Amino acid sequence: MGTPTRTRILQEAAKLFTEKGYEATSVQDIAQALALSKAALYHHFRSKEEILYAISLLALEGLVAAGEKALNVEDPKEALCRFMEAHARYFAENRPFFVAMLQGIQSLSPEHRAETVRLRDRHEANLRAILKRGMAAGVFREVDVALAGRAVLSMLNWMIRWFRPEGPMRAEEVARGYCGLILRGLANGDPGAQGA
Amino acid sequence: MGTPTRTRILQEAAKLFTEKGYEATSVQDIAQALALSKAALYHHFRSKEEILYAISLLALEGLVAAGEKALNVEDPKEALCRFMEAHARYFAENRPFFVAMLQGIQSLSPEHRAETVRLRDRHEANLRAILKRGMAAGVFREVDVALAGRAVLSMLNWMIRWFRPEGPMRAEEVARGYCGLILRGLANGDPGAQGA
Repeated sequence: MGTPTRTRILQEAAKLFTEKGYEATSVQDIAQALALSKAALYHHFRSKEEILYAISLLALEGLVAAGEKALNVEDPKEALCRFMEAHARYFAENRPFFVAMLQGIQSLSPEHRAETVRLRDRHEANLRAILKRGMAAGVFREVDVALAGRAVLSMLNWMIRWFRPEGPMRAEEVARGYCGLILRGLANGDPGAQGA
Repeated sequence: MGTPTRTRILQEAAKLFTEKGYEATSVQDIAQALALSKAALYHHFRSKEEILYAISLLALEGLVAAGEKALNVEDPKEALCRFMEAHARYFAENRPFFVAMLQGIQSLSPEHRAETVRLRDRHEANLRAILKRGMAAGVFREVDVALAGRAVLSMLNWMIRWFRPEGPMRAEEVARGYCGLILRGLANGDPGAQGA
């Protein structure tokens, strides 16, 4: 048994959207790459936007699930690093889906966009929950949780722009490096500045 | 005297590239938006790629110049925050040029790409110079300068994906918030962990 046609369509479309861009990719391009007729493709998806939506849902559901595993880690510092590693690993292992999802959000219909934003917000809420727990425990200092969460996700998401799997560091190693940086900060010593 | 045609072409093209994407925008689209003939447009630029290159050069030269003003600030912490604010302000004040540049790099010819990478590298080298100076002065702890520089630029560049000028914070305020976070880190107290 081969891969189901529906899955093959999503995989090929994610690849084309990532390489050429969503707008520049036609349903004809996707059908042609799979040696399918357009009619056969339309049997599975009503439009290119439906394909992008299916890709975005799969990517986000997987990302949320990967991040949620870190919520059970007791130490807030370790939970944060695990969350960041899970995000980076999910990106590296599902690159076309992840990139097509991140880059495609403006191309979705308002209803579909709202659903993907709901999932993104859940992922961000999970991250903020780790930050809030660390602050409540006195392990993290009192910071703007929205700003700190955004900083963490920005560092991780920008990896789509420069990370190469053949490079010297694995995606999880980059995430762990970023986590160390965001935990300890750049400033040296000066414990007087650590309160408040 | 109105704005020179060449400048108007670049402004309109940057806007269209940002809104529709580079691939999905045709020379015809740009000419039409300016009520110019294609022939008139080709009088100024030989191709769409030439337009993108001109936009990218202007954006990067402006960004590098903005960042370089921070190099003269004596305190490394303040220099870092000024550099970050300058980057964020430049983005907010030159959004279409900045976004078209950041998103267009893969669409440039190899020669043009090399030239824009050279400018990007110069901007990154300026940031790393601030980090190295702070480390040499003992103001910053010893960190992986490449990783820390990348973290800083990632936070700033991801703003193209979420920052809205009508939002509650100005771009410089976001940058200053990020700078405070990256300087002090999330971890509370624990000065024993601050060395090495």
